[in-house]
Amino acid sequence: MSDAKIRRPKAETPKGFRDYFGPEVTERKAMLDAITGVYHRYGFDPLETSAVETVEALGKFLPDVDRPNEGVFGWQDEDGDWLALRYDLTAPLARVAAQFRNDLPAPYRRYAMGPVWRNEKPGPGRFRQFYQCDADTVGSGSVAADAEICAMLSDALETVGIPRGDYVVKVNNRKVLNGVMEVAGVLDPANPDRFAHERGIVLRAIDKIDRLGDDGVRALLGAGRKDESGDFTKGAGLTEHQIGTIMTFVSANTAIDNMVFESSQAAAPSHIREMSHSPEFRNGVACLYLETIVGSSQIGLEGVQELKQIADLLQTQGYGADQIRIDPGVVRGLGYYTGPVYEAELTFEILDEKGRKRQFGSVAGGGRYDDLVKRFTGQAVPATGVSIGVDRLLAALRAKGRVGGASAGPVVVTVMDRDRMADYMAMVADLRNAGIRAEVYLGNPKNFGNQLKYADKRQSPVAVIQGGNEAEKGVVILKDLILGAQIAQNATLEEWKDRPAQVEVPRADLVAAVRNMLGQ
Amino acid sequence: MSDAKIRRPKAETPKGFRDYFGPEVTERKAMLDAITGVYHRYGFDPLETSAVETVEALGKFLPDVDRPNEGVFGWQDEDGDWLALRYDLTAPLARVAAQFRNDLPAPYRRYAMGPVWRNEKPGPGRFRQFYQCDADTVGSGSVAADAEICAMLSDALETVGIPRGDYVVKVNNRKVLNGVMEVAGVLDPANPDRFAHERGIVLRAIDKIDRLGDDGVRALLGAGRKDESGDFTKGAGLTEHQIGTIMTFVSANTAIDNMVFESSQAAAPSHIREMSHSPEFRNGVACLYLETIVGSSQIGLEGVQELKQIADLLQTQGYGADQIRIDPGVVRGLGYYTGPVYEAELTFEILDEKGRKRQFGSVAGGGRYDDLVKRFTGQAVPATGVSIGVDRLLAALRAKGRVGGASAGPVVVTVMDRDRMADYMAMVADLRNAGIRAEVYLGNPKNFGNQLKYADKRQSPVAVIQGGNEAEKGVVILKDLILGAQIAQNATLEEWKDRPAQVEVPRADLVAAVRNMLGQ
Repeated sequence: MSDAKIRRPKAETPKGFRDYFGPEVTERKAMLDAITGVYHRYGFDPLETSAVETVEALGKFLPDVDRPNEGVFGWQDEDGDWLALRYDLTAPLARVAAQFRNDLPAPYRRYAMGPVWRNEKPGPGRFRQFYQCDADTVGSGSVAADAEICAMLSDALETVGIPRGDYVVKVNNRKVLNGVMEVAGVLDPANPDRFAHERGIVLRAIDKIDRLGDDGVRALLGAGRKDESGDFTKGAGLTEHQIGTIMTFVSANTAIDNMVFESSQAAAPSHIREMSHSPEFRNGVACLYLETIVGSSQIGLEGVQELKQIADLLQTQGYGADQIRIDPGVVRGLGYYTGPVYEAELTFEILDEKGRKRQFGSVAGGGRYDDLVKRFTGQAVPATGVSIGVDRLLAALRAKGRVGGASAGPVVVTVMDRDRMADYMAMVADLRNAGIRAEVYLGNPKNFGNQLKYADKRQSPVAVIQGGNEAEKGVVILKDLILGAQIAQNATLEEWKDRPAQVEVPRADLVAAVRNMLGQ
Repeated sequence: MSDAKIRRPKAETPKGFRDYFGPEVTERKAMLDAITGVYHRYGFDPLETSAVETVEALGKFLPDVDRPNEGVFGWQDEDGDWLALRYDLTAPLARVAAQFRNDLPAPYRRYAMGPVWRNEKPGPGRFRQFYQCDADTVGSGSVAADAEICAMLSDALETVGIPRGDYVVKVNNRKVLNGVMEVAGVLDPANPDRFAHERGIVLRAIDKIDRLGDDGVRALLGAGRKDESGDFTKGAGLTEHQIGTIMTFVSANTAIDNMVFESSQAAAPSHIREMSHSPEFRNGVACLYLETIVGSSQIGLEGVQELKQIADLLQTQGYGADQIRIDPGVVRGLGYYTGPVYEAELTFEILDEKGRKRQFGSVAGGGRYDDLVKRFTGQAVPATGVSIGVDRLLAALRAKGRVGGASAGPVVVTVMDRDRMADYMAMVADLRNAGIRAEVYLGNPKNFGNQLKYADKRQSPVAVIQGGNEAEKGVVILKDLILGAQIAQNATLEEWKDRPAQVEVPRADLVAAVRNMLGQ
C-alpha cells in the first residue's frame, strides 16, 4: 500500500471542542469529588442519564425546519426519530422523574455531573461541550427544600476551598416580582393570560439590567429603545406610573442599601445604629422593603413570606446572612423559574485580561421550577435545584491558588543499559509497591540527555540512575530534580555543598532513600 | 393555556440507551477510582478528549452514501463537515498523539475513561452508550511497554477485588501467526502485499474458532464452508499441507497441554515431572512449541523472542505465570494488532441465565498497534494499550459480592409538626456536621406512615422522630430501621425485649446516639 495515495485526515479537535490533559482532569475530578461528598451527606443520590435524548423529550422540536439544530446537536435515527445530545442536566432529570415516577422515592433528591453539549457559536472560553454539576429535589413544594439547596451550595463552596467571606449565596423570589406586576396592573390573578405579552417584555428587560442600566430598562418598559446601532426594540408600552412601580423592584437593592445607610447615621436611634452593620439587619430591611412594594398582592406577600422562611431556616442551622443573603438584585432566569431563585457569587477580586480589578462573579445558580415534569405527565410536580458552572468554579479555585500545588510527576528510572531492563522494571515495581508513583523510561535510551529532558517534562521529582559500575557495586544514584532546579537557579556555593542534589545509595535502600528525598 | 391542546412528549430513554441510578453510579465510580489509582502509580496521565470527533479523524468516511452512519452516530455541522460521537477511546488518542506530538512527553503514557457510543442494533445487555477504561503507551516500541501494561492490568484487577487465582492475563503475539503464515507460504517477507486476500480470510477464520471449532476453521482455510442456513462462505483455498501448518498455531494450546501432560507422566524424567505442574513450566513449553512451528521465519522467531522477554520481565517483577500466561489461544483482534496481544480472563465460575456453570470470561483486552498515529502524520508511531470492559468487570465484582455491601442510605429525620421545620433542619445539620449522611423528610408530612415508607425506600438505617411531647421534654426518638426489619422477620419475644429497636434520648445526645446505633 503506497502512503502517497492516501489522503491523510487532519489531526484536529472539531471547532468549539477541546481536550483536557493531566492536571486539568485530576483537578476537576478532585473538585467534583469534594462537591459529591457534600451532596451525598445531604442525602442526594447520583443519577447518570444517557448523553442522548429524543429531541421530543428535550423540548426542542421544530416541525417547520429540516433539522432541529437550534442549540442542540441532533440527528435522525433509523426509524426517522430525531435524537440529540443533552444541552443541560435538568431536561433529562424531568424526563427521568416522569418515566420512573412509580419507582423513585418521593421527594427525590438527586445530583448529576457530566458534560452537556450546545450547538452554539464557539468563542474565547466558550466551548460546545462543558461540564455541569447539578443537585435538585423533585416532588417537594416546601421552601425547606430551597433552603436546603442554598445551605448545600454554601457547604460545597467552602468544602472545595472558597472560605466564608469570599462568597455569598443570594436569594430572590419570582413571586415578589409577580406581586409587583400585580400592583403595576400587568398581572391579573383572576385572568393569568391577560398582559402575558407585556410581562414577557418586562422579564426580558429586567434580565438585561446589567447591560442596559436603569434608563435602558425604563425605555423598554415604556415606548421602546433604540440601541447604538440604531435598531429599535418595541417596549411594553407601560405608563410612567406603571414603570415606576416595576422599577421599585428593579432598583430594590439601591433602596435597601440606602435604608441600611440611613440606619447607621447619627440621626438613627442608637440600638438601630448598632445593629445596622450586621448582615442579618440588611436581610430584615430587605423583607420590609419588599413587603412594602408588593402592597396587598397575595402572590407577592407569599413570595416575601417564603424569603423570610428561607432566611429563618438557614439562620437556625447556623448560616449567617453574610453567607446567604436575601437579594432582589438576582434577576437571571427569573422568567424560567416559579418561586425562589438563588445564585452563588464569588466576592473576591481578580485581575481581568486587561489587568483591571473586578469581582469574580457568579459560579452557580438555580431556583424553583414547578412545571418541567408536567410537560410529560400533565401533573404539576414541584422541583427546585442548582447548577454549578464547573469550569468557572475551577477557574476561581485556580485564581485563589487552591488547586495545582505540588508536582505529582512520577519518579523516573532511567535506562543506562538496554539489556538490564528487567532490573530497572524491578526498581519501579519496588517503588510502586511502596505507593510511590514511578515509571521506567521507555523511549530510545541511547541519548541520556533525552532521558533527563523527559524527566523534566514529566515534572519528575527524582531520577534513578544505575549504570554498569553502579550495578557492580550494588548501588543506585538518586538525582533530586526539584532541589537540582532550585540550586541551579539561586544556590550559593555553600548551599550547593551542604545539600547535594545527587546521592548514591545501596540498591536495597532505594525505596527508603527515594521516600526521604520526597520528604515523606 | 389549556393542557388538552398540548401533545405531551413521551418520557422515554431513547432505544438502546439507559440511565444509571444511585449505587450503579457510585459502584462504578469506586471501581474506576481504584483502577485510576493503579494507573497513576504507574506514571500514566489522564486524558479526556471531547466526545465529538470529525468523522474524518475517526476514520469512518463513506463518500458514497448520504450519511456516515456505519457504526457511529454522526451529523453534519454548519460548514457541511461530518461530526460523530467517538466509538472508542483509541481513535481519539491517535488523533491527540498526532495533534499534540510536539508538546506531549515521548513516550506518552495516558489513561482515559468515559462513555463511547455505537450506532448498532441494541440487544439484551447491549447498549449504544457504554463505558470504557483504557491505558496506552504511545511512542515506545519496547516490549517492556507491553509487559508494563500486562503488569498494570494484573494489579488493577487485584486492586478492585479479583484475587490472584481468579484471573489470568493471557499473552500472545501477532508476529508468531505471521511466522506461521510465512511457513505455510501465505506471507512473503520480500513482497508483503502478496497473498493479502488469503491472509485476510485466515485471520477472519481464526477469529471465529470459538464459534466454528477446528473443523469449521479448516473448511474456511480450504475450499469454503456451508453454514446451517445453507449459505456458503468461500475459503482461502489453501492446500491440506498449508492448512495443517496454520492449524499448528490454531490448536497450539491443545498441543502445549499435551506436552505438559506427557511431562507429568511416569515416563518423564523425575526432575521434569516435578516441574511440570508449575505455571512457569507451561510458559517454557509454550515458547518451545511456538519456536518449532515458526521454523526459520524471522518475524516468527522475533515474536517468540518478544513473548519470552515479556515473560522474563514480568517474572523479575514478581508476577507468576499463573497471573500472566503465554497463551497462543488469544485470537481476538489479531487482525488489528501488529505485535503482542493480551487479554484478561476471569477464571472463576458463575451460573449463567439458564443456571449452568460457566467461566466468567474476558473483561479486558489489548495489544500493540503501530499504525494508528501514522494515519495522520505519515510517520509510524509504536503504541500499545489495553481497554477494560467496565460493565463486564463491574458485573464480575457483583457476582463475587465485592460491591454493594452495606446500605448507604441516609438517616431520615421525620416531620411531626410542620411548623417546627427549623428544629428538624437543625437536627440534620448537626448530623451532617458530624459526617453522618442525613436528610429531613420534605414531602407532605400529614401521613406519618408515608414518612416511614419513604425511609424504607431510602434504605435508611435510622429514623429520628420528635413530636410535640418529645419537644417539650427535650428528647428525640430514634428508630433502628435495620434492627427493626430483622426483628420483624425472625426475633423471639425475648430478643424483642432485650434489643429494643427504638430508644428515647436527649436532643443534645442526638449525634452520639445515632452514631452508636450505626455502630460507628
